Amino acid sequence: MNPYNQRQRFRTQQESGTTSGMCDNYLQANMLVLPKEYAFDFLLFCLRNPKPCPIVDVLEPGITTPKIANADIRSDLPKYRIYRNGEFVEEVKDIQGVWRDDFVTFLIGCSFTFEKALLEDEINLLHQEQRKVVPMYKTNIPCEEAGRFKGNMVVSMRALKPEEIDRAVKITESFETSHGSPVHIGNPAEIGIDDITVPDYGESVDFNEEERIPVFWGCGVTPQNVCLHAKPEIMISHAPGHMLITDQFEEKK
Amino acid sequence: MNPYNQRQRFRTQQESGTTSGMCDNYLQANMLVLPKEYAFDFLLFCLRNPKPCPIVDVLEPGITTPKIANADIRSDLPKYRIYRNGEFVEEVKDIQGVWRDDFVTFLIGCSFTFEKALLEDEINLLHQEQRKVVPMYKTNIPCEEAGRFKGNMVVSMRALKPEEIDRAVKITESFETSHGSPVHIGNPAEIGIDDITVPDYGESVDFNEEERIPVFWGCGVTPQNVCLHAKPEIMISHAPGHMLITDQFEEKK
Repeated sequence: MNPYNQRQRFRTQQESGTTSGMCDNYLQANMLVLPKEYAFDFLLFCLRNPKPCPIVDVLEPGITTPKIANADIRSDLPKYRIYRNGEFVEEVKDIQGVWRDDFVTFLIGCSFTFEKALLEDEINLLHQEQRKVVPMYKTNIPCEEAGRFKGNMVVSMRALKPEEIDRAVKITESFETSHGSPVHIGNPAEIGIDDITVPDYGESVDFNEEERIPVFWGCGVTPQNVCLHAKPEIMISHAPGHMLITDQFEEKK
Repeated sequence: MNPYNQRQRFRTQQESGTTSGMCDNYLQANMLVLPKEYAFDFLLFCLRNPKPCPIVDVLEPGITTPKIANADIRSDLPKYRIYRNGEFVEEVKDIQGVWRDDFVTFLIGCSFTFEKALLEDEINLLHQEQRKVVPMYKTNIPCEEAGRFKGNMVVSMRALKPEEIDRAVKITESFETSHGSPVHIGNPAEIGIDDITVPDYGESVDFNEEERIPVFWGCGVTPQNVCLHAKPEIMISHAPGHMLITDQFEEKK
């Protein structure tokens, strides 16, 4: 199915599941909506923290159609999360009812792009084999502050075979708008992760008794974590794994 | 002289000339100051137009010390220009008197870095040989709009020997924070320049009767041009050629 038709299915709520694996070769993006009052601080936060928050597109106040997708961002994602004053409030399938003319939308690269590049180089990913959402963890790695936005990075983890690591680093570093190269390799404790079997988001993966080394990448859930500090009156994001499918092909950079 | 000492000479107004050729190997930057009200639009404008406006650093409202220089940006540049409602008002050596707590400072890469890289590869530059300020021109190349900021790109021109062009493109494309690769090669009329001997900023260079091809790069004077449209109540920039000398070494990227 092409991206437009797939988005129509979300818009009409015939479907509302994860977009993982959908519309092969098309770029998918994390979404974050904030009132204009917070937009400069957040844009600066993204610029200063390109690994968790690589900017793909920014929509000016009130604009609902991105440059990279013939879509309405208020209805064409499968599921959204609404946060008020830094607290998660509800998950919804449409945000037309809460939309305001001062809302600024940020589209942020997601890991689907680099995962596909890894697979194409025959690096298999356990969470995909086990049909799980990739495990994500809060860390002790501080993001660089920007105005009201501060907090630690959230990372996603893929456990690779030792001989795959160098290749995985090289492949992912060329996808700057898909989180780039890993932020840590090898020791979860060193970045504040006490128990690798208990992720903060997503699902735990089974290492299959093979020798596997955990590799951590910056994660687009970071802004949701940072939001706990900034406490904007309202913030809206995609639900994890439920991205905007764009009309743009995935490419390096 | 090291950057700190050189900046002190500007601060105490013992000197106020161009920074061209000063503090070898240290990054120099264009400066632009706007009220916070305009900061989101302008930051987005820079992101969408990285060739004329490659972001090097952004200082949050009221902050006067950049991360990349132990400097006071209100006094440590040799000369500033103040614009009100989009019109040039005056050139001054210090902006402490007009400084406000809601001022956001943008530091933007300048062409000195890539010029040095060209020289190191034995591509000589006529404006330097002739001791002139590089010629700059208004063009018909539209910038990508962002909020209140719209307008055409300003470019700088260096006339190269035909056999130098490929190398010059390759060298400059690796300096993304110094305007990157050329925006046009060869035909001034095609980008709206009627008379190459009459630049809009800087000084005309003599082609020396050799075969030379004009090569055009995005220029940090672009925001000053774009400002004519946005008409912010106040905007402050460095005077052309009178940059902030930072404490950071020049490097590719």
